[in-house]
Amino acid sequence: MEWNRIAAGRRTVRRFEQREIPEETLRRILDAVRRASCAGNLQRLRFAVARRRETVKAVFDTTAWAALVRPRRTPVWGESAPLCFVAVVAPEGSPSVVLADAGAAIQTMEYAAFDEGIGCCWFGSFDPQKVREVLELPAGYGVLYVVALGYPAETPVSEDAAAGESVRYYLDGEDRLHVPKFTVEALTFWR
Amino acid sequence: MEWNRIAAGRRTVRRFEQREIPEETLRRILDAVRRASCAGNLQRLRFAVARRRETVKAVFDTTAWAALVRPRRTPVWGESAPLCFVAVVAPEGSPSVVLADAGAAIQTMEYAAFDEGIGCCWFGSFDPQKVREVLELPAGYGVLYVVALGYPAETPVSEDAAAGESVRYYLDGEDRLHVPKFTVEALTFWR
Repeated sequence: MEWNRIAAGRRTVRRFEQREIPEETLRRILDAVRRASCAGNLQRLRFAVARRRETVKAVFDTTAWAALVRPRRTPVWGESAPLCFVAVVAPEGSPSVVLADAGAAIQTMEYAAFDEGIGCCWFGSFDPQKVREVLELPAGYGVLYVVALGYPAETPVSEDAAAGESVRYYLDGEDRLHVPKFTVEALTFWR
Repeated sequence: MEWNRIAAGRRTVRRFEQREIPEETLRRILDAVRRASCAGNLQRLRFAVARRRETVKAVFDTTAWAALVRPRRTPVWGESAPLCFVAVVAPEGSPSVVLADAGAAIQTMEYAAFDEGIGCCWFGSFDPQKVREVLELPAGYGVLYVVALGYPAETPVSEDAAAGESVRYYLDGEDRLHVPKFTVEALTFWR
């Protein structure tokens, strides 16, 4: 897909089709992720892919979904629940710069997934200790973030927000998610 | 440009042509950046674009370039120096989740720049107080990261690294930068 289409797309979704993601598709996504920028090229992040149904369910049960659109965008397991989670993990006690690496990796995951027709939902709110156990991570690794992946069953839209306007996302009367994004003018200091 | 080409490309460079980036190109890059993922869609980041020659020079003077390829990849001002810097700024005292937002924004900047034929170099090592002053940021904003942008004057290459192999980047005898990246196999736990 052309970059411009990916860049302008709404890549975050919270409703998913009940359709598995083939392993070769996941591998293509991870092949992009492994090339993401990271501090000093140290590549301290690892990725745990939850695919088995009971594993996905166990991760699902620890996640908290978007606060502003509850309960309509809180997925119900077995209806519009995700088919796969990727946990972004790092050695325990990693420096804070690893959070920026994780942001770069997850953003790459979202673009590469979108290119495959797949939507994502990035979580900071989940039970890291529980997810760590469910995923049977090697000793010394902690979970930084979790990303749900699946074929989208909703089509959210972006809208522009000027400086000072609200950027709270919301569902309209037709159950469509609107996501306000500040304009370039509102975000940029030219020097 | 097709996503696959962007994802597989080497987007980080440290040698730049002495050619200005048109403002409309910078605006297209920032238009992608503003749509990057961020926690709760709160959009706490701002971007300060240093374009005036004396401003770029002042930022340049505070940066420390890649440790492993000094001095051959330490740009000399006026020869292969960057034409533009973008500082990623946030309200002082922002939560640590903003570092992940910054990673997502800078990774997006790199992809959007690459799509325009532009290379980037992401810095964590610079003098944030000095950059803050040079860029005349509004009160209450701090600098998280700085990114140099310019048309590339080098063509680095990626290579694969298996688990346990070294990922130290290096210059070969022909002055070409090699950047080892772990394979998907080395990075992924399948569960």
